[in-house]
Amino acid sequence: MLASAEIGHKISKQAYTRKEPALRNALLNAQFDLSQTRFGPVLIILSGVQAAGRGETANKLTEWMDPRHIRVVAFGPRTPEEAERPPAWRYWRALPPKGKIGIFLNAWYNEAMHARTRGKIDDDRLHSHVQSIRQHEQMLTDEGAVLLKFWIHLSKAEQKERLKALEDDPRTRWRVTRDDWDAYRIYNRSHALWEHLLRETSSGDAPWYVVEGADERYRNLTVGKILLDAMQSVVKARPAAGNAPAKRAVTPTPPSVLDNVKLIRDLDLSKKLSSTEYKRDLEKYQGKLAKLSRHKRFANHSLVLAFEGSDAAGKGGAIRRVTGALDARQYVTVPVAVPTEEERAQPYLWRFWRHVPSLGGITIFDRSWYGRVLVERVEGFCTVDEWMRSYDEINQFEEQLTAGDAIVVKFWLQISKAEQLRRFNAREHTAFKRFKITPEDWRNRKKWNQYEAAVCDMVDRTSTEIAPWTLVEAEDKSYARIKILRTIVDRLERALRS
Amino acid sequence: MLASAEIGHKISKQAYTRKEPALRNALLNAQFDLSQTRFGPVLIILSGVQAAGRGETANKLTEWMDPRHIRVVAFGPRTPEEAERPPAWRYWRALPPKGKIGIFLNAWYNEAMHARTRGKIDDDRLHSHVQSIRQHEQMLTDEGAVLLKFWIHLSKAEQKERLKALEDDPRTRWRVTRDDWDAYRIYNRSHALWEHLLRETSSGDAPWYVVEGADERYRNLTVGKILLDAMQSVVKARPAAGNAPAKRAVTPTPPSVLDNVKLIRDLDLSKKLSSTEYKRDLEKYQGKLAKLSRHKRFANHSLVLAFEGSDAAGKGGAIRRVTGALDARQYVTVPVAVPTEEERAQPYLWRFWRHVPSLGGITIFDRSWYGRVLVERVEGFCTVDEWMRSYDEINQFEEQLTAGDAIVVKFWLQISKAEQLRRFNAREHTAFKRFKITPEDWRNRKKWNQYEAAVCDMVDRTSTEIAPWTLVEAEDKSYARIKILRTIVDRLERALRS
Repeated sequence: MLASAEIGHKISKQAYTRKEPALRNALLNAQFDLSQTRFGPVLIILSGVQAAGRGETANKLTEWMDPRHIRVVAFGPRTPEEAERPPAWRYWRALPPKGKIGIFLNAWYNEAMHARTRGKIDDDRLHSHVQSIRQHEQMLTDEGAVLLKFWIHLSKAEQKERLKALEDDPRTRWRVTRDDWDAYRIYNRSHALWEHLLRETSSGDAPWYVVEGADERYRNLTVGKILLDAMQSVVKARPAAGNAPAKRAVTPTPPSVLDNVKLIRDLDLSKKLSSTEYKRDLEKYQGKLAKLSRHKRFANHSLVLAFEGSDAAGKGGAIRRVTGALDARQYVTVPVAVPTEEERAQPYLWRFWRHVPSLGGITIFDRSWYGRVLVERVEGFCTVDEWMRSYDEINQFEEQLTAGDAIVVKFWLQISKAEQLRRFNAREHTAFKRFKITPEDWRNRKKWNQYEAAVCDMVDRTSTEIAPWTLVEAEDKSYARIKILRTIVDRLERALRS
Repeated sequence: MLASAEIGHKISKQAYTRKEPALRNALLNAQFDLSQTRFGPVLIILSGVQAAGRGETANKLTEWMDPRHIRVVAFGPRTPEEAERPPAWRYWRALPPKGKIGIFLNAWYNEAMHARTRGKIDDDRLHSHVQSIRQHEQMLTDEGAVLLKFWIHLSKAEQKERLKALEDDPRTRWRVTRDDWDAYRIYNRSHALWEHLLRETSSGDAPWYVVEGADERYRNLTVGKILLDAMQSVVKARPAAGNAPAKRAVTPTPPSVLDNVKLIRDLDLSKKLSSTEYKRDLEKYQGKLAKLSRHKRFANHSLVLAFEGSDAAGKGGAIRRVTGALDARQYVTVPVAVPTEEERAQPYLWRFWRHVPSLGGITIFDRSWYGRVLVERVEGFCTVDEWMRSYDEINQFEEQLTAGDAIVVKFWLQISKAEQLRRFNAREHTAFKRFKITPEDWRNRKKWNQYEAAVCDMVDRTSTEIAPWTLVEAEDKSYARIKILRTIVDRLERALRS
């Protein structure tokens, strides 16, 4: 893959001067069309050999186009703020919205490569890195992003020459660091890794383009031309009116649900606690939670709680019994409702990533990223395709949280249809709770069976070892609250012990 | 002011048990009403004596109300990320949107007090701190925020008792630090400062409430009651339909503009550069800018550029000549357009604060915070009251940027009415520039004189020593671009020299 970029591609100054103005105009026009259609974003990843000209390429692209619609981000060693969150957080945060162009220098590739060439991770870890990169890129392209990955390459001789040239010029000498020469020294060893990584992460939707970096005219024109083609085909391929990304040709079959509802139908909703038991247990588990959340070791973790459940199942009350034990400075409660304008211009999971807690912090989601496979599925707010791939994306999301030392605890609160009716009626007659019941609640109720099926599929497909679902028998509020507190306490104890 | 909070206020357990449930219900209802009306936010500041129970009060309030609509933030020493931005940045970032409640522990008070009691700043600096606090709070209340400032107080004896009690209990021992005892030791010295600060920062719109902290029942009920009254009167006082904050009774007189337009009418628009001069100077100043922006000392500064000008005055082209000299990883260009939903739920300046660069960074605003005193004034998008107070708010904003080591450079690009017409026509006939002209541009043109007056007022009132306006004769694009580059270079040279 790399050999063809070590043969000394060159473009003469004359040819460049002839071609550049037209390319530049075309790029500017395509960029404008892109911004009007609100597709994308177009995400350009510039990775490659040290000193091959990644930064210069980024500069040239922003010079050619309208810099107001381009976001350039260079990813180096993680900042203190980034180190406090799961590794993927910084990539989510930097993601440009639809209609814009992002240029990511190095992005998620250099971390893995750097660690492997320095022997900090073995082949198995590298393989799992590659897997998550593939999944992440798949998610991005599924969400409508256009991914252009450029490997700016130099042969070993070219790299040496380039580093020397930079060192010889007093204006650029400061740019050459020991790190650069270290990279040169292990060039041969790295070469095999690059080949491997590029092959493993070249997919149909997100292929690599290897571009020789030694001649800047060749490099810039090549990258510019590929970018132009990509932008033009995005704008052409998609209808100017709609906002939705093109659907995939093959729609997967929805999961079978026939024998699946057993999972929640079998819950024993008669479980309850006496008032005495409740008071005793509440004090006990709130006390434990208060202590655990203030424990020294908790500073190396974070806690993500997701609450889902039928309408009126008692999520709010349960959450307040949890927060009652916490320090208000330590947690944030995020009610998940209709996404904002900024959230709609981003991939689905973006609105949850922005609330991911830092180490020592707690985020409580009142409804969560499972909305896609629950209400959006049942109400038809998204395509079958979209909610089907959501299971995988969600599992990956939770894996990434866990890899960042978050403890992920998920609850489904279940009540009977009859109990829901009782609670709806009671709410309508209590002035104080009047805001808790809406016409939508009554509408949802009519689709009880469909929701049941969706819940069972959800639990089936997203209850993983690292982030298992806890089904909560919520017919008796006291029982539910204690079960929730106890589960959180158990999970925390286990995590802080190890 | 403090003496009345040192007399041992107490509420019996019996009285508390009787009063608490009703208060809690009322708070929950008022909070719900607030969230529906989208007024506010209600911002509760909990400051006071060490160990007086600020954190406990925050916990009690979130326990009483719906934690999903409360954001609690404790401000301690600045984090690395915060230290990279102007001091006010972290308060803007934490500000809850309309309809929500924010609880800020310490907020902007403790930094100033801490510095003064430790002798790190003198009375003059303290006075200027107080001034900016007053202005900041004025801005918040003008924008519709309800500010409730609580000073949770303890007498010296009570503080000692409380610290001892915390130390004696093995569960709370860890909470008492050396810092707490240091604070106790300088209690008497601090007392006078507190009195002074509280008096100086108690205004009609944002008075202090001093609450004795020793008895937690008294403390919680008192804070809760004041909060309840405030929320109820917010909801009552304002019409449920509209979204705008109540207008002030007295509308200030707009500034006189009669003899003022001279400022821009006197510009010599015949200034121009030959093509040779332009090429020579462009290379020269872009070279200087490239060097300065990569200079070691620039890492201790940031650069904020604001571009304003008549339509078609050439802002975009000028910006590209600036970014052409910069490293794409270092700058962000922010086109200022219609505010997003999240921006509309915040005070006017919030949308600019979120883009304030960190040290070593550059933000280029294509149109800026001056929109309020230009287009919004002329088109009547805001009240006279709003744009009149904007001058002060803007000056304060730029002061804060400068205090955070930002270099603020502002350009107004001026062309003649005839030249604008030529450019409009040319644009309509160039396919490549077709997107640069809209019906709005033609409409704005009809208000040429009004814009002229607004511009002159703006320059008059916001050209300060620390952030002067540069008026740019933009009839000749070459001349304008070079003047802009030269101005930025001059300002950078001066800043990096000192």
